[in-house]
Amino acid sequence: MSPSAPDAGAEQRLKELGISLPPAPSPLGAYVAAVQTGSLLFLSGMLPIESGSPRFQGRLGDELSVEDGRRATSLAATNALAVARKHLGSLDRVTRVVRLGVSMVTTPDFREHARVADAASELLIRVFGADKTSARMVFGMTSLPAGMCVLLELILEVGRERPDPW
Amino acid sequence: MSPSAPDAGAEQRLKELGISLPPAPSPLGAYVAAVQTGSLLFLSGMLPIESGSPRFQGRLGDELSVEDGRRATSLAATNALAVARKHLGSLDRVTRVVRLGVSMVTTPDFREHARVADAASELLIRVFGADKTSARMVFGMTSLPAGMCVLLELILEVGRERPDPW
Amino acid sequence: MSPSAPDAGAEQRLKELGISLPPAPSPLGAYVAAVQTGSLLFLSGMLPIESGSPRFQGRLGDELSVEDGRRATSLAATNALAVARKHLGSLDRVTRVVRLGVSMVTTPDFREHARVADAASELLIRVFGADKTSARMVFGMTSLPAGMCVLLELILEVGRERPDPW
Repeated sequence: MSPSAPDAGAEQRLKELGISLPPAPSPLGAYVAAVQTGSLLFLSGMLPIESGSPRFQGRLGDELSVEDGRRATSLAATNALAVARKHLGSLDRVTRVVRLGVSMVTTPDFREHARVADAASELLIRVFGADKTSARMVFGMTSLPAGMCVLLELILEVGRERPDPW
Repeated sequence: MSPSAPDAGAEQRLKELGISLPPAPSPLGAYVAAVQTGSLLFLSGMLPIESGSPRFQGRLGDELSVEDGRRATSLAATNALAVARKHLGSLDRVTRVVRLGVSMVTTPDFREHARVADAASELLIRVFGADKTSARMVFGMTSLPAGMCVLLELILEVGRERPDPW
Repeated sequence: MSPSAPDAGAEQRLKELGISLPPAPSPLGAYVAAVQTGSLLFLSGMLPIESGSPRFQGRLGDELSVEDGRRATSLAATNALAVARKHLGSLDRVTRVVRLGVSMVTTPDFREHARVADAASELLIRVFGADKTSARMVFGMTSLPAGMCVLLELILEVGRERPDPW
């Protein structure tokens, strides 16, 4: 498989990476998965849910390892891509990943936040390209919904609905 | 009392719900209650303060129940409405609730985050209408200012100051 | 030293305050220090790093005092100014501090969040002026990257690149 051209779109890159997105997960309460205002798409907190079930419940540094945390973060990021595609029609409309927040449930003495968060950042860079890399902030929490170990916040900058074909 | 027309404004809905907003709470430090930039209104962290006093201090899952958490969240949301009205003149100018963040102080094994957060989401939907429902993210914290159990972050999309009367 | 005129720019105020900014700190992972979208500049989580090394590791209310927390917060805010200047060319382009998030690692019974967070707010007000004061939210965390006790989130509103000289 040849590497994609520098200007290959996100949908083309996803195919080349062999990633097929799951159905966008449903909200866990009285909210919607994404809201667009102007050129900014705000995603709801994205969790490591698979086929409707919470995965990776527990605390990093205790019953969950850094590697568990990275798999959970990667799963949550895949759900974020699914929600963004559902809202936008195509991930090719994303012109920048603006802000990535990574909240993880940890023991007080956990120190490997950056390695866990990088699992999301690296996936987003592979899909959208290094020129769209986000700002990022990382937090260690006491708890998250349904006992899951990670939650992602994502703000995307998007272009207009139908790119001019000419 | 007849249900409001689908296009009734937020101020009309508030009246029909019998909700009268408290005075907007004062900031607890060197910041302002709200900042507007372009069409986005960023509210400061909204807390369960009543008549200037902190309420609902403690941890969910310990000395505070889910029902306490819901009442605290509802109170904080009412304060948010008061701040938004004070800044905008009228809640009718809100064209979308963009993002709601709900941070709550919990025990490590607390799992009912969504039920607590829904107390804010449900109030906002009743006031602004289901078509303006927000994206949302929910966190379990170690502590919050003055020991209060919940803090809301809110970003609102707002229209221009004086709607054209014609 | 005479007080600056009300309309003195941020760079002039910094000079008068005798503050010289450090080099902008490098990201701790696969992200960039700042992303601008439209007129909003989103900064990555800013930490109390000095000359590339984490400072002020620990918990407020335990091994770290409120005064330690204020020094850590002030250091993180100085790093934020360094990143903003590096991205914008000049801090004079900042037209508003929109949102300041202050996350600090605390014991469960810590109550002095506002005093700690004010160390950042007060610095930003001295540099940008009281008319640009931000909205703010404050959180008590279980942990933060590399064990540091505070992390700042900052959204700035910025004007166009080259102010009209006439």
